[in-house]
Amino acid sequence: MQTPALEVSWRVSVLEWLARHVPPKRIEHILGVESTAVALAERYGASPERAGRAGLLHDLAKYFPPEKLLLEADRLGIAVDGIQRRTPHLLHADVSAGLAREIFGEADPQVLMAIANHTLGDAEMDLLSQILYVADWIEPTRKGEDVARVRQAAQANLMEAVLLGAEQTILDLIESRRAVHPRTLLTRNWALSTLEEHL
Amino acid sequence: MQTPALEVSWRVSVLEWLARHVPPKRIEHILGVESTAVALAERYGASPERAGRAGLLHDLAKYFPPEKLLLEADRLGIAVDGIQRRTPHLLHADVSAGLAREIFGEADPQVLMAIANHTLGDAEMDLLSQILYVADWIEPTRKGEDVARVRQAAQANLMEAVLLGAEQTILDLIESRRAVHPRTLLTRNWALSTLEEHL
Repeated sequence: MQTPALEVSWRVSVLEWLARHVPPKRIEHILGVESTAVALAERYGASPERAGRAGLLHDLAKYFPPEKLLLEADRLGIAVDGIQRRTPHLLHADVSAGLAREIFGEADPQVLMAIANHTLGDAEMDLLSQILYVADWIEPTRKGEDVARVRQAAQANLMEAVLLGAEQTILDLIESRRAVHPRTLLTRNWALSTLEEHL
Repeated sequence: MQTPALEVSWRVSVLEWLARHVPPKRIEHILGVESTAVALAERYGASPERAGRAGLLHDLAKYFPPEKLLLEADRLGIAVDGIQRRTPHLLHADVSAGLAREIFGEADPQVLMAIANHTLGDAEMDLLSQILYVADWIEPTRKGEDVARVRQAAQANLMEAVLLGAEQTILDLIESRRAVHPRTLLTRNWALSTLEEHL
């Protein structure tokens, strides 16, 4: 456990790095994910400290251009599949996890996994990953009817919010004629079967 | 090539078998798929004879109960994945292909593959499989706005019809809270990327 003083200094160092690498609007989103992840962790019994770190670090590579994402994935030893090769933006989650470890010394495997899972999710993902996945969907700057449905679900049942978030992602990608990554479907099917097992 | 006389006798033997194993309403659907597949084959340059056989044989196992589908899949050496284990009805395509070979001597690998692909589709599926997949969607007894969209697409671009059929399948399954088989998503992503390559 870090001392509060060190925590503040660490957080400031992340915010300074973000100020140089993402637009102000995105920092507002990132701070929203951080606070929402902390709140969901308190609500669902995960570590608020880990949730906050995952939230603050989740989008480090969000604005890297496609070529840089591919180079960084290669450098960090991240496997790149066919859909990610054609849509390198999908790699920003994995690359952000790699940078969180490398630049900011994040060593907690659950935090790193949550960052890597925040865009595509995964079957069997743990509580912290579920929290970050949902927080990224519902933080306060997100607007719209679909967001409102995920937000409302998150108040009662985190897995229901994972399900609706994954489903809405699939619907949005079909609507805009973009590839749907198979992991998003696996996340959706897993959330559905988990909810059915608990009926 | 069979003589016309043999063809008629073979077709009657299939219809007699179907009369004992599927309800009359389904035979109407099967005959609709047969004639639609023949028409699409003529339109898109595939063999009308193969398309007709695939159409007539595609739903042999449609009304087998779940336990029988699992037993038949096992007997025919068909690999069963987790989603098919929980939803054995998805196996009716593969089991129908096995029975088409076993009971009616269908030996053409393209015809057997088209039958096996008619429910889930597949990435890289060949022209005959595309034709049967679309014919199953748009044959005359199928009604509704979504069917009308696939039907209209099939007049101009078979791959667009495959795309819309797979997408509508995904939307319907999400709407009714059922598992989406990953092969349906692979079919959809493949049809989309094939269309984009030809823009």
